[in-house]
Amino acid sequence: MSRLVGKVVIAQGGGPTAVINQSLVGAVVEARKFPEITRVWGAVHGVRGIIEEKFVDLSEATTHNLELVARSPSAALGSTRDKPDADYCLKIFNVFKRRDVHYFFYIGGNDSADTVKIVNEFAAKEGYQLRAIHIPKTVDNDLPVTDHCPGYGSAALFVASAFSGANVDNVALPGVYIGVVMGRHAGWLTGASCLARKHENDGPHLVYLPERQFSIDQFLADVDAAFKKHARCLVAVSEGVWGEKDAKGKKVPLAAALMRKFGREPQVDAHGNVQLSGGALADELADAVGKQLKIKRVRSDTFGYLQRSFPGVVSPTDAREAREVGEKAAQYACWHDVDGSIVIRRTGDYAVKYELAPLADIAAKTRVVPPEYINAEGNGMTDAFRAYVRPLAGELPYVERLWAPPATL
Amino acid sequence: MSRLVGKVVIAQGGGPTAVINQSLVGAVVEARKFPEITRVWGAVHGVRGIIEEKFVDLSEATTHNLELVARSPSAALGSTRDKPDADYCLKIFNVFKRRDVHYFFYIGGNDSADTVKIVNEFAAKEGYQLRAIHIPKTVDNDLPVTDHCPGYGSAALFVASAFSGANVDNVALPGVYIGVVMGRHAGWLTGASCLARKHENDGPHLVYLPERQFSIDQFLADVDAAFKKHARCLVAVSEGVWGEKDAKGKKVPLAAALMRKFGREPQVDAHGNVQLSGGALADELADAVGKQLKIKRVRSDTFGYLQRSFPGVVSPTDAREAREVGEKAAQYACWHDVDGSIVIRRTGDYAVKYELAPLADIAAKTRVVPPEYINAEGNGMTDAFRAYVRPLAGELPYVERLWAPPATL
Repeated sequence: MSRLVGKVVIAQGGGPTAVINQSLVGAVVEARKFPEITRVWGAVHGVRGIIEEKFVDLSEATTHNLELVARSPSAALGSTRDKPDADYCLKIFNVFKRRDVHYFFYIGGNDSADTVKIVNEFAAKEGYQLRAIHIPKTVDNDLPVTDHCPGYGSAALFVASAFSGANVDNVALPGVYIGVVMGRHAGWLTGASCLARKHENDGPHLVYLPERQFSIDQFLADVDAAFKKHARCLVAVSEGVWGEKDAKGKKVPLAAALMRKFGREPQVDAHGNVQLSGGALADELADAVGKQLKIKRVRSDTFGYLQRSFPGVVSPTDAREAREVGEKAAQYACWHDVDGSIVIRRTGDYAVKYELAPLADIAAKTRVVPPEYINAEGNGMTDAFRAYVRPLAGELPYVERLWAPPATL
Repeated sequence: MSRLVGKVVIAQGGGPTAVINQSLVGAVVEARKFPEITRVWGAVHGVRGIIEEKFVDLSEATTHNLELVARSPSAALGSTRDKPDADYCLKIFNVFKRRDVHYFFYIGGNDSADTVKIVNEFAAKEGYQLRAIHIPKTVDNDLPVTDHCPGYGSAALFVASAFSGANVDNVALPGVYIGVVMGRHAGWLTGASCLARKHENDGPHLVYLPERQFSIDQFLADVDAAFKKHARCLVAVSEGVWGEKDAKGKKVPLAAALMRKFGREPQVDAHGNVQLSGGALADELADAVGKQLKIKRVRSDTFGYLQRSFPGVVSPTDAREAREVGEKAAQYACWHDVDGSIVIRRTGDYAVKYELAPLADIAAKTRVVPPEYINAEGNGMTDAFRAYVRPLAGELPYVERLWAPPATL
């Protein structure tokens, strides 16, 4: 055991999730056990809190408070959308040197992993001892190497529950229902809607991911066929579906194209992501179904921000794993002289173990839904995907149908 | 006890809720105990199932299945948006005569009460013995006489939970967040968002109901002030807010006006209600805040259909009361020679009793949020309203803040 005396800085980045505080508390509670850790500081609002030196002293948070925070949604330290470049990372590193910080845990997605990697490279260059660990988190589930990402399971449970409720609503009042689900480049979360199907004729009957090019004509043909078969139709659509590429060969999300059509220029964030939120996509698809297929009752919802940290909708597996990736980060850093990203390996059905992967394998990379999880038509999920996602989301609230014979007239 | 031998017909109308099946099962299980009830028929898809004589025989549903259905969201018999006129009601009555139906239980809102009333008048005119009971149900909570409506408490729990989650999301990534909530004429459900406020600076900081005229200028001034105070702002807006009246003096919902602005003619249903669903209102308000107040991070959601029957989000009080109004309907009808609408009286804090009110007092009437529940500025709820709604929604999932001192630099 190498005793590296110094402070921990821990931070949370990107979009909040239902279980990101489990990871925070896992790392903090574990780190506080080690005598060589002089203080555990939490950066307020992610990396921005580091360069502005806004820290809270988590060594003096009560364990009771931490345990309640662990069970609360969103990012308790505050988050940020800042995407640090090399200069920004150098500022982070300089704060670490000045404040005697030798442990850095950053909970976030692939851009957060990239930040950890760059800061770590500055430390290596100067021979400054830093143990830098990326703790995975994203409802998008789009990190490479790891089997899945903490935060995804709970969001998947929300999406599947929403479609389970929308399905029985749609049975009661038949028509077409379209639900637009988060997922810019990867359709993992939209795919989870398939867990709502229990009976053969349950919805969603159609699922569209950004892994496939979206054609409005094919979409209408699909809805028409499903509606003719079931006399109703539920559709799950990723917010990131795209119909065409621009002059530079970049996919143009339909949601952004529609915002422009209605006179609103979508915002672009520091990560170069064009804004997809808002109801335009759902409204437009519903409008097309109503007008072109002459279906009377067409409704649509955009699940929006509700799906990523809805209080009380938490997958127990997700909560447990989020806790453990946090704990493992502290253990790897304190017991071993290493840096990296914590990854989850699936070792059974269902069992996992935690490992450390090189930061370079995770940083700034995106894992999309592989072909074997999408049906040949590109409008539904396969059984292999259902087997993948089911243990992550956990059990859906039970929904029962009424079984009664027709009355004898 | 007067023994009236014959069949029961029970039906569900209007929008599904999380607990409407509790009322169904309450009435069915109770009615099946009485030997003079020859059969308990469920009408498939509400009143439409009656005139088309599509019934299921609930005498032959297992109690076990019924109990599981009771705990499932949406309307298990199917529902309808049909609003019967006198001719339609006469058809219903003729089916009852032909099929020896002497008990009619209809679970629904004020239009369903109106249907029960008209059918009952046909029976009275012909001296046909019919015991017709309206069982209240609506997430809108807009029925008169009753203290509140089954279905409302669970939807209120969803809305309050959603804002509780959105609040901590907004703390983590500050900006303006606007949530659009169901409620065409009455703001009961939007008002429930106030339960998300635990700490003084929690959101929603502003709440707008259709009980007050909506001014976009005042809205922007309010958001501006709240944002300056809190460096963030959460807003709850009813989908039914209206800014102006048309030539006939009828309120024009902003959502409908916006749909027209974007070239979509909103649908009008059989009840004369113009379609309010879709994301246009939320998008437009967010756009106005971003452009006119120069606030960078502005997000909005339309809660849509998720809020009315989300699996697993059920208020225990709401479930219990929905069950009991169903049971009471069967008891009133079987033990007494009466018709009417079941109403809930609040007799303590918190305690209720059930009574029977004349159908004419409920039918086709709407109860809006009274002035004492809305603050003087028309942009928030009073403590009196919080005291009213809290026992109905029940306990929200616990959300804890992190308490840690600033680090000593």
